[in-house]
Amino acid sequence: VITALAGGVGAAKLLRGLVRVHDPAGVTAVVNTGDDLVMHGLHISPDLDTVLYTLGGRNDDERGWGRRGETWTVMEALGALGGEDWFRLGDLDLATHLYRSQRLSQGASLSAVTAELARALGVDVHLVPMSDDPVRTKVTLRDGVEVPFQEYFVRLHHDVAVSSVRFEGADAAAPAPGVLAAVAAAQTVVVCPSNPIVSIGPILAVPGVRAALAARRDRVVAVSPIVAGAALKGPADRLLAELGHESSVRGVAELYAPFAGTLVVDEADGPMAPAVEAAGMRCVVAASVMHSVEDAAVLAQVVTEAALAAR
Amino acid sequence: VITALAGGVGAAKLLRGLVRVHDPAGVTAVVNTGDDLVMHGLHISPDLDTVLYTLGGRNDDERGWGRRGETWTVMEALGALGGEDWFRLGDLDLATHLYRSQRLSQGASLSAVTAELARALGVDVHLVPMSDDPVRTKVTLRDGVEVPFQEYFVRLHHDVAVSSVRFEGADAAAPAPGVLAAVAAAQTVVVCPSNPIVSIGPILAVPGVRAALAARRDRVVAVSPIVAGAALKGPADRLLAELGHESSVRGVAELYAPFAGTLVVDEADGPMAPAVEAAGMRCVVAASVMHSVEDAAVLAQVVTEAALAAR
Repeated sequence: VITALAGGVGAAKLLRGLVRVHDPAGVTAVVNTGDDLVMHGLHISPDLDTVLYTLGGRNDDERGWGRRGETWTVMEALGALGGEDWFRLGDLDLATHLYRSQRLSQGASLSAVTAELARALGVDVHLVPMSDDPVRTKVTLRDGVEVPFQEYFVRLHHDVAVSSVRFEGADAAAPAPGVLAAVAAAQTVVVCPSNPIVSIGPILAVPGVRAALAARRDRVVAVSPIVAGAALKGPADRLLAELGHESSVRGVAELYAPFAGTLVVDEADGPMAPAVEAAGMRCVVAASVMHSVEDAAVLAQVVTEAALAAR
Repeated sequence: VITALAGGVGAAKLLRGLVRVHDPAGVTAVVNTGDDLVMHGLHISPDLDTVLYTLGGRNDDERGWGRRGETWTVMEALGALGGEDWFRLGDLDLATHLYRSQRLSQGASLSAVTAELARALGVDVHLVPMSDDPVRTKVTLRDGVEVPFQEYFVRLHHDVAVSSVRFEGADAAAPAPGVLAAVAAAQTVVVCPSNPIVSIGPILAVPGVRAALAARRDRVVAVSPIVAGAALKGPADRLLAELGHESSVRGVAELYAPFAGTLVVDEADGPMAPAVEAAGMRCVVAASVMHSVEDAAVLAQVVTEAALAAR
């Protein structure tokens, strides 16, 4: 039984590897919903959808996000009307948002809707949002203006300096049903290679999650999203630096040490292993950049063995 | 200056004729919003959209509703997810609903959004919803179950008997800005050939509208949507009969006489002219079935002259 904390693309890749080496029915993915948004009346859950599409074999590997074979008829027509089209929603992707919005409006929980979508897309991993309650990541820019996460991430192309991040609603949010149990029951808890601040951060901010992880600290294995000082994708490196952390595996280890026993770092960071251990985490060095599903399966095996070795 | 009360397709056709014989800038269309619905999180205004698309030259004349060149990518993908797809929303049409939903969520009024959409689609008629407040047509079926209008109209293909109709929220609704003024200022008020019960009925149910019409009764010209006892489109004939009215131009005249001076009936109903007059309305006989824009322009001219003659 494996439980993974997941953000978007990096997490989806590792999950695809995990289900190669483990029975998917024994894998639970707890997914960040801090960057969910309501736009055009639609409830959009970007990280859940990335994991859904990837595990369901519907993702567009080349573009790196969204669905394969996507078309953009609605967005083009919306643009022609003068509508807001900076957050690109493909036609196939929109169907997911329509489905989710309709079911939520009927009173279904986000967990229930996610389970329905997973079934429809043939995803047999147990996929759960971190919470059924709204938690919204808010980013304060250097000029003091606070914006919702997607304004920062998509509209501003995360090309602006950040002075702080908070997770609105987190204090009042409950973990989704099964989240704490999945952590408590797991032989291995995997912290996927996702942005520590804005992907893993919101999950940790849900009351009870951090303590549940800390209670199983020996079994918690994190994969560093920082390789040779840089993020493979997205603004994790800059965010770490801007918020006073080191953009390195040491910086990641300092954030994760309180609740995770082991950090898997890329071979490029082998020389940093002592620094990771000085920060309080066991360090496992492995090829961590996933160019293919095969790479992901190898990394999944490394993570699994690291957890066994740690006990 | 002409003000028209409008439902969907029949109204849109006549409006297209009216703007052939009058300056569009002098035409105000007050459109039914009783059959608006929120679905998949989207605010859908079917009658407003029919008028928008028709006057904007975007309508699909062959299908009889929706946009020309429409595609169905989102609906097909939604169906594949197991979502509710009985209310068919084309990709181009969806762009309108996304636009409207986003602007409403930002606090814009339905009037303001409608004006924006009209501008974007090149519609120069002054197009206003009957109210910015929600009014929802509810239909009680013979078995006693009450359903929202679109469940009756689309999902059940209006193929079930109706025992009553009400307009939820109408009592508390205010006419949209400019509606009463447009009626008061009009040289001619046209009641378009729309369903008297569920298209014109909701407009009349908005407080103040019926009285404003009655005060200008001589200038109000209605076009009968019933021709030779039958509706050209939709369930108007059956609804009239089921709710205790005659499905004929006499039945229409009995409903409209309190606030409209003149009824235009089709040549097929020439023999019914005395019955219309007995019901208290002047009767004008003309070719009222609009097969083309040219037909619509001729009918528009008839309506205009009828109003002049009535004064």
